Amino acid sequence: MRYELYYWTGIQGRGEFVRLALEDSAASYVDVAREQGDDAIVRYLDGVHEGALPFAPPFLKAGRLLIAQTANILQYLGPPLGLVPASEGRRLYAHQLQLTIADLVAEVHDSHHPIAGSLYYEDQRVEARRRAADLRETRLPKYLDYFEQVLERGGGEHALHGHSYVDLSLFQLMSGLEYAFPRAMLRLGHELPLLHLHALKLRVAQRPRIAAYLASPRRLPFNESDIFRHYPELDDPA
Amino acid sequence: MRYELYYWTGIQGRGEFVRLALEDSAASYVDVAREQGDDAIVRYLDGVHEGALPFAPPFLKAGRLLIAQTANILQYLGPPLGLVPASEGRRLYAHQLQLTIADLVAEVHDSHHPIAGSLYYEDQRVEARRRAADLRETRLPKYLDYFEQVLERGGGEHALHGHSYVDLSLFQLMSGLEYAFPRAMLRLGHELPLLHLHALKLRVAQRPRIAAYLASPRRLPFNESDIFRHYPELDDPA
Repeated sequence: MRYELYYWTGIQGRGEFVRLALEDSAASYVDVAREQGDDAIVRYLDGVHEGALPFAPPFLKAGRLLIAQTANILQYLGPPLGLVPASEGRRLYAHQLQLTIADLVAEVHDSHHPIAGSLYYEDQRVEARRRAADLRETRLPKYLDYFEQVLERGGGEHALHGHSYVDLSLFQLMSGLEYAFPRAMLRLGHELPLLHLHALKLRVAQRPRIAAYLASPRRLPFNESDIFRHYPELDDPA
Repeated sequence: MRYELYYWTGIQGRGEFVRLALEDSAASYVDVAREQGDDAIVRYLDGVHEGALPFAPPFLKAGRLLIAQTANILQYLGPPLGLVPASEGRRLYAHQLQLTIADLVAEVHDSHHPIAGSLYYEDQRVEARRRAADLRETRLPKYLDYFEQVLERGGGEHALHGHSYVDLSLFQLMSGLEYAFPRAMLRLGHELPLLHLHALKLRVAQRPRIAAYLASPRRLPFNESDIFRHYPELDDPA
C-alpha cells in the first residue's frame, strides 16, 4: 500500500505525528502537498470528491479510504505498520493516550493563540502570557505527570509494554515542549521528575529510521508558524 | 453486558454523549458516580487499579476493559449497540466526525474559560468576550457549515446514511449551542442556513427512548457549571 499524506507545507504541525509513524516503519508514502502544494489539500476540504469529508488536515488516503483526524489516522495505521499491540484493550488504550496527547497539543496551540486562531499572536499577546503561565504551572505538570505514570505502568520504557505509535508521539510531544518552553521543561524535569519521558525521548531519537528521518530534509525545523512556538516571554522567567 | 459509566455528577458534560448512546439503544448501564459519588471516579484517576489509566472522565468499564476519552468510548460501543455502520470506511468516518465534534466542544468550553480551567469565569470575563465573539463569528459558522455538508452528503437525514452515534452527538451539540448562544444560533440558522442540522435535532429528540430519557430525571438540565453555559454577554448582542 502506498499511502498519501495530506498536510500543510512549511510546518511539522499535527501531520508530524503521522510522518513519524510512517518513517519509523519504512512505509511507502507521499507527502502530497510538499510535492503539489497546499491546493491539493483544499480540493478535498471543498468536498469535490466522493466519500468522507475532512474538516481539516492531516488526512490520509489509503486506497479508497480517506481518513482524517490525527489520532484516527494513527489508529488506522497502527496494525498494518506494526505500531500497536494486537489486543483490543491495548489498542483502545493506545488510542486513548493518543487522544490525550492531542488534547495537550491543542492546549499548547492555544497558549499562543488564546483568543482566536484567525488573529496574529501579536494581537493576543497579553492574553497569551496569562494562558501560557497557566499551561506551565497547572496543565503541563498534570499532563506530564500523567504520561510519566503511564510509562511507569507500561514497565518504564514504553507506554504499552512494547514499541507503539504512542511512544513516537510522546517523543514528538517532548521535543516540541522542550523547543517551546525550554526553561519550564527544565524546571518540570527536576520537580516532577520526568525520568521515563526523557529516556523515552532519547531512545526514540536513536531508532535508526527515526534518526535518519530527523537528519533528513523531510524533518522541518520547529518554527514560529507551527504549533510548538518558542516565544521567550511565554516561557518561565529567566 | 452491564456497562459502568464514570462521569462527574451535577453536569451533562462530555459524559452526556455516552449517555445518549446508551439510552438510545436501551443498553444496561450504571451511572456510577451518581450512585456512589465522585470519589468513585477519583479512585481510578489515582491509578490504584490495574490496566489502562484514564486522564479524566468520562470513562467506561466494560467487563475487564476500562476505556477513556469520549470518542473512543463511542467508537467502542458503536458496534455492540448497533450505532455505527458495519463497513470499516464508515466506522472510521463516524469516529472522525465524533472527534471533530469533540474539538468544537473544547472550543465552546474555552469560550467561557479562555485563560484557565482552574480560574473562575469572573476572572477571565474580558478575555471570554473576545474569544466568544470569535467563536460566534468564525468558528461556529465553519464547524456548523461543515456538519451541514456532512448531512447533505449522508443523504440529508443522517451523517452516515443511517442512524448512528454521530447523529445523537449532533443532537447534543445543537442542543447545547442553542442553550448557550440562542441569538447567535438563530442568526446562523438564517445565514448559513442549517436546515439539515435543525431537522436532525428534532428527529433525534422524537426517538422514543431519547424522548423518554429527556423527560426523565436522568437528563440533567444545562447549567452554568457545565460546558455549554448561557452567559448573555457572550452571545450576539440583543
